[in-house]
Amino acid sequence: MSTRIAKVDCQLFKVPLPEVMNDAKHGDHTHFELVTTTITLEDGFEGTGYTYTGGKGGHATRAMVEHDLAPFLIGKDGTQIEEIYEEMEWHIHYVGRGGIASFAISTVDIALWDIRCKKANKPLHIMAGGADNTCKAYCGGIDLQFPIPKLLNNMRSYLDNGFNAVKIKIGRENLEDDLERIKAVREFVGPEVTFMVDANYSMTVDKAIKAIEGFKKYSITWFEEPIIPDNYQGYAEIVDKTDFPLAMGENLHTIHEFEYAFAQSKLSFIQPDASNCGGITGWLKVAKLANEHNIPVCSHGMQELHVSLVSSQPNAGWLEVHSFPIDQYTLRPLVVENHRAVAPDTPGTGVVFNWEKLARYKS
Amino acid sequence: MSTRIAKVDCQLFKVPLPEVMNDAKHGDHTHFELVTTTITLEDGFEGTGYTYTGGKGGHATRAMVEHDLAPFLIGKDGTQIEEIYEEMEWHIHYVGRGGIASFAISTVDIALWDIRCKKANKPLHIMAGGADNTCKAYCGGIDLQFPIPKLLNNMRSYLDNGFNAVKIKIGRENLEDDLERIKAVREFVGPEVTFMVDANYSMTVDKAIKAIEGFKKYSITWFEEPIIPDNYQGYAEIVDKTDFPLAMGENLHTIHEFEYAFAQSKLSFIQPDASNCGGITGWLKVAKLANEHNIPVCSHGMQELHVSLVSSQPNAGWLEVHSFPIDQYTLRPLVVENHRAVAPDTPGTGVVFNWEKLARYKS
Ligand SMILES: [Mg+2]
Ligand SMILES: [Mg+2]
Repeated sequence: MSTRIAKVDCQLFKVPLPEVMNDAKHGDHTHFELVTTTITLEDGFEGTGYTYTGGKGGHATRAMVEHDLAPFLIGKDGTQIEEIYEEMEWHIHYVGRGGIASFAISTVDIALWDIRCKKANKPLHIMAGGADNTCKAYCGGIDLQFPIPKLLNNMRSYLDNGFNAVKIKIGRENLEDDLERIKAVREFVGPEVTFMVDANYSMTVDKAIKAIEGFKKYSITWFEEPIIPDNYQGYAEIVDKTDFPLAMGENLHTIHEFEYAFAQSKLSFIQPDASNCGGITGWLKVAKLANEHNIPVCSHGMQELHVSLVSSQPNAGWLEVHSFPIDQYTLRPLVVENHRAVAPDTPGTGVVFNWEKLARYKS
Repeated sequence: MSTRIAKVDCQLFKVPLPEVMNDAKHGDHTHFELVTTTITLEDGFEGTGYTYTGGKGGHATRAMVEHDLAPFLIGKDGTQIEEIYEEMEWHIHYVGRGGIASFAISTVDIALWDIRCKKANKPLHIMAGGADNTCKAYCGGIDLQFPIPKLLNNMRSYLDNGFNAVKIKIGRENLEDDLERIKAVREFVGPEVTFMVDANYSMTVDKAIKAIEGFKKYSITWFEEPIIPDNYQGYAEIVDKTDFPLAMGENLHTIHEFEYAFAQSKLSFIQPDASNCGGITGWLKVAKLANEHNIPVCSHGMQELHVSLVSSQPNAGWLEVHSFPIDQYTLRPLVVENHRAVAPDTPGTGVVFNWEKLARYKS
């Protein structure tokens, strides 16, 4: 039976969040969008890939998969993932590179990897690298507007759920507010818990430096996206002036953007997101580049998939457990043991959607 | 009456090309996509903006305008273009920056400029800068696979239509083929005609340097996109080793990408396209930056609109007269006098679509 691609089926879901979530630059989140692409080969093997957004871009992503990628994919050998990846990049280059094109390519690429793993009868953590099947994990809140008691309650639930690492949003108008929140969280979780902060690129270089001066005594593991992702050299300027560890990557969509970051930004951690940097193929390219630069590879969002990718790498960093609960709509929500996230051992990506549970959110 | 935005209407057309056109990286073009966005204010003023593609991305662009931008725009003051521009950038930042987001924003921004000009009762060339109402213009072929007689025939028609500047595609597998075509064109048009070449980023740095060594004796005004747009420093390397004038810009979608190009690429010409770099607001930002760097601002595509923008600038460069004949679907196809393109003098952008002629291509 042929391994040619027979069918490409793309769906969009708008899934409400349990409560309104807020960060410094994206405003209020009331739901997330989930775009799934299911690919069937002529031999009957089937795989599902996906991406997600904070509420905008889902329709455009689906339109690109349906109108620009699907007709192009039908008939191609679905086992030649790396070739298909390159071809997709060139196929939509004029309306790419990055942005919606990267989201659309990601859904296709992950679906093909799901098939690759199923055909090999192996789990993704083995197929993607095999270094380990567990990794460090932290919970990331989207909690910028939570009053402090509610913020600390959130921290309590993270610790209760077996984690020993947390991240909060910063970037309120008044830097004193940020520092007060950071102080409260550090005092609440105690000195042993790993603690990061994330400004969602809301600061200037100068404000970021001032913020670091204010919070460096609280033992913060990294400062995430202090400034806009486009200002690669601004990141290096902050590092030069503070010697503080910085992280970014969730807004970098092409391998070239990651190359600029590695070359110019003096990052301590990199956080590619397979849902928006070209799927598993794109994520692994970044992980390899990170390893060459001696930088731990972390992740952003969709923990149910990234757990396998981060665990598989020799330079594994931290898995983000994101506040968009995509994993609650799969048959295996994230597993945590001894403070570490555990990758699924089933053949495929290990992400199998609960289509029944999703059905009511179909758009 | 209020100037709030009352209605946003987005349409997609797939317009067949008179013949199959081919370049080094985009393959065969059989039609172009035109996405129009018509905005109506509460006071009844109406404007139309648009973008175009080589055949992919039109559906995604329309989906983004309809689902992500339109609901966000309704009720905003349509005269505050620069504020709306910034807000749109942040609104879809997570699924931006660049790519489809830039195309979608462009259609909205141009529509708002159309309204701004109509309200002021002035043509775009005045409202955008006012330096002049004419500019230099050249015809750009998408002719990589044309046999030489057909290529020269094309040149003949450009000259017959009143132009004295031409551009051809290069980047065939065999560099000798490119050189043969360049030689044939230079001999055909004579020494007085301005002549550029465009490789559509198909070469490596080394191949580009070799190509320049081969064609520099033919008095070529610029070499366009020798290498991928992402390799900003590669452009500088070519300039350092050949001292040859380079041009690019049609694949740069954000002001940051243009900043990298100005800072790193040692370009002699910049070619922003208002249909994919944020509309007229985005194009003017690039033009200003170019002026600060003493670089002439040129254009890519949609000559019927860019004629007003290029003419209006103190650092006006060359208008590209592109082979996608969008202007043939407007009420005023491009006007050329004394080898120069003439901007329309009607209030608005001067681009009024012939909706009846377009109707049959609606998608
Ligand atoms: Mg973040
Ligand atoms: Mg070109």
